[in-house]
Amino acid sequence: MEDFHYNPHISVDCVIFGFDDQKINILLIKRKQSGKNVFALPGDLVQKGEDLDHAASRVLFELTGLQNLYLEQFKAFGSPDRIKDPVDIEWIKSIREHPEERVITIGYNSLVKVDGFEFTPSSFAEEVLWHPIEKPQKLAFDHNDIANTGWFMLREKIKREPMIAFSLLPEKFTLRQLQTLYEAIVGISLDKRNFRKRMLRNNFLVAMEERETGVSHKPAQYFRFDEDTYREDFARDQWFLF
Amino acid sequence: MEDFHYNPHISVDCVIFGFDDQKINILLIKRKQSGKNVFALPGDLVQKGEDLDHAASRVLFELTGLQNLYLEQFKAFGSPDRIKDPVDIEWIKSIREHPEERVITIGYNSLVKVDGFEFTPSSFAEEVLWHPIEKPQKLAFDHNDIANTGWFMLREKIKREPMIAFSLLPEKFTLRQLQTLYEAIVGISLDKRNFRKRMLRNNFLVAMEERETGVSHKPAQYFRFDEDTYREDFARDQWFLF
Repeated sequence: MEDFHYNPHISVDCVIFGFDDQKINILLIKRKQSGKNVFALPGDLVQKGEDLDHAASRVLFELTGLQNLYLEQFKAFGSPDRIKDPVDIEWIKSIREHPEERVITIGYNSLVKVDGFEFTPSSFAEEVLWHPIEKPQKLAFDHNDIANTGWFMLREKIKREPMIAFSLLPEKFTLRQLQTLYEAIVGISLDKRNFRKRMLRNNFLVAMEERETGVSHKPAQYFRFDEDTYREDFARDQWFLF
Repeated sequence: MEDFHYNPHISVDCVIFGFDDQKINILLIKRKQSGKNVFALPGDLVQKGEDLDHAASRVLFELTGLQNLYLEQFKAFGSPDRIKDPVDIEWIKSIREHPEERVITIGYNSLVKVDGFEFTPSSFAEEVLWHPIEKPQKLAFDHNDIANTGWFMLREKIKREPMIAFSLLPEKFTLRQLQTLYEAIVGISLDKRNFRKRMLRNNFLVAMEERETGVSHKPAQYFRFDEDTYREDFARDQWFLF
């Protein structure tokens, strides 16, 4: 049961996306409810007197053990019927002192590489897992809506600041790796030739002398991302395309 | 005094920007408090069972008489010390049944042309006014922070979708009008020649045969904004610049 430290009206939900070199995954927690598995976003009530950004980091840490992620607020969800499924109502009654209170939740998102993260599920999370975003998964409450909106907002942000996506690649990468990442983000397969032709127009993508080694296919050339050129190109593109 | 219809924990605040052909203004309400004028954003508590988007439209209408604006949520503000100025605390005590409750507010913004709007101040608003954003004005609570964030988010949106800005111009406009708008948005003066040279690179800006009439200076050529070309150019520019 929650204690008196919590504000029963405001919660935070974390929508964390992770790239595993092949596809984008979303971070979920699994909990047991009446003998069944229920999947949800890591989220919980804000404490009294606690800042929203702080609450997002704390809740994520308490449920999953993850720390030091850059979490960005993307939207508040306040529909009066956010909690309407009887299963969700049952859960709320079992954990909240004021289950009848309307809870507004603030969504936070983040994008990380999946490797290097170790989970420590605790509180009501029995398990923490990466779930591929392309595979549908029913989530508790309105978490499917929150997750979809979080992904949409993150993609919009990547359009404005593609550098975010490059941070998911190793320092030197092949065009195949770049295409895999790109396809994972936009969610469609692309023609290899066209992709390369268009991508190489970007001056911030710099060909290196070095090639892959120890591969059975023809070793591909490595590229690197040049942040300075990128910043110049993007500064030029601010405001009405110039 | 508010009645039992209100949720004492959640409010909405509207940050409405208006272009008057010269500069950008922000919509403020003025109220009397202990004989003094206090300026604030139009904002109030959400009703029980009311959707957040609906609340934003309702509150704006109730305070200012404005209707049918496209309001977009941009951020939730939940700092525990949002209300700390004694003047603000005094006001909250005079209008709220639960003045001690922490209120999270959801900011909504919008950008309009100022002409054609008529105000009908009511509720606690004694006056509704357009205030130039370049002139500092102390606002109640954390409304300066909310207003600044609302402006920042709107500018970011205009960078991604410059079409929003073109909607503030008449159907045919001169480059001088475009530069005035542009300078009002970015907040700096620009070299005329450079501005024209760079702006004319944009294919969506189409020169018309027609020129100004009835002006004392050399009549300037009219331009129009071509939405189809704009959409093509922008579709091309999605995702890593192509």
